[in-house]
Amino acid sequence: MALAEPLVLYTAKICPFAHRVELALAETGLKSNKDFVRYEIDLKNKPEWYQPKINPASKVPAIAYGGPKTTGDQPSPSSTKIAESLVLIEFVADLFPNSSLLPKDPVLRAKTRFFIDTFANKFGPALFTFQSGKAPNGAEGIFSAIEQLQDLMAPEGLAIGDGTEFTLADAAVIPFFGRMEVSLKNDFGAFPEGEGKSTWEALQTDKRFARWKKYWDTAKARESFKTTFDEDYLTKSYSTRWTRA
Amino acid sequence: MALAEPLVLYTAKICPFAHRVELALAETGLKSNKDFVRYEIDLKNKPEWYQPKINPASKVPAIAYGGPKTTGDQPSPSSTKIAESLVLIEFVADLFPNSSLLPKDPVLRAKTRFFIDTFANKFGPALFTFQSGKAPNGAEGIFSAIEQLQDLMAPEGLAIGDGTEFTLADAAVIPFFGRMEVSLKNDFGAFPEGEGKSTWEALQTDKRFARWKKYWDTAKARESFKTTFDEDYLTKSYSTRWTRA
Repeated sequence: MALAEPLVLYTAKICPFAHRVELALAETGLKSNKDFVRYEIDLKNKPEWYQPKINPASKVPAIAYGGPKTTGDQPSPSSTKIAESLVLIEFVADLFPNSSLLPKDPVLRAKTRFFIDTFANKFGPALFTFQSGKAPNGAEGIFSAIEQLQDLMAPEGLAIGDGTEFTLADAAVIPFFGRMEVSLKNDFGAFPEGEGKSTWEALQTDKRFARWKKYWDTAKARESFKTTFDEDYLTKSYSTRWTRA
Repeated sequence: MALAEPLVLYTAKICPFAHRVELALAETGLKSNKDFVRYEIDLKNKPEWYQPKINPASKVPAIAYGGPKTTGDQPSPSSTKIAESLVLIEFVADLFPNSSLLPKDPVLRAKTRFFIDTFANKFGPALFTFQSGKAPNGAEGIFSAIEQLQDLMAPEGLAIGDGTEFTLADAAVIPFFGRMEVSLKNDFGAFPEGEGKSTWEALQTDKRFARWKKYWDTAKARESFKTTFDEDYLTKSYSTRWTRA
């Protein structure tokens, strides 16, 4: 598959929201820095043109689509700038309507979007609260959100339908599971010492999370994940991110 | 246009989220209680089957799609139950891919979804905070959100593209503008007495909101709005909703 117009993705390795879009693009078969420009934004030192010319909210991810070919650091006024990760993964699916990113069946498409909605409203806040050391019941919030997601998953394989096709549901959640693994297994977080490791151990061994563990093993074995996830970089970044009280 | 399968919409006149789905269905040309079943849920006294059989989150809107024809109050286990207003309006667009609800162009589709995202993250919270009497700068939060939406709107007509077609962007925001009008012009809210009326006056006359006023006049003149919005019912409900401090 090929793009009709030039595309620049403004992203950052650290950011799970931006990673969603990298995964969606990779799953269409597009190659980074060949079929589109991948432009890494240093979130601690953003280029001064980024906020005025690419995203007024100054966040990643963003896409510049159309206009002349550029290297990313000299954005053309004639490209369309689009932001927000969930808007962008839908955009990628719309650019490639014959990809697997959205099933053809309206009911399965709705299940894809409901899965993302549940993830965003339940798992995201639970993980953030736990990592910040502010979860009233320790890891129970994460555990409960994972059980809710399991209830919505295909019996095996990936998230939606018969589990054989990679959809936007997978693109939306995988970046967060990858970062959760780095945080928990290295005990990086503001939670009490040891609670990251014990939580990760539970997710790996407790039968309660058996479906999720299989899901996560399947997901992280995919080429799209391996080419877009830099575990060493994240491990280094996360090692100084949180301060334990 | 016609539905391939039976559809029951669980909704409530009071609820702006549920109203989104009623608007989307109306704009496809489907007639309520002819082409699909409209089932009103009394949110203060929900039927006991609603939470276990239709929506575990116990909220409206929800759709039961497929299975045998039912009247709504005896849900079939063989229908698919779908919830969350933004998931549901996308579902309606997927059922009617040739409707205007989503433009054909991927960039315009992205603009439709970005408009909804901006509305949900900026306008929704601003209106809620103002009505609750907790807005630190009075109506300024509402005004600022309306200006942001204006910046994303077509120069005239409806929200997206050239403003001639009704899209999901319109379905997502119109229910909230309708309820805002009832709240402000009747001074219903926990804000200081008179602040509702003066805010509504500003929205009607201040040049700063000229594009929004035209938008709202266009939107509320549509048949889909007139057949799905019960102003008398809302006025009565809202008259006792907030307690002024």
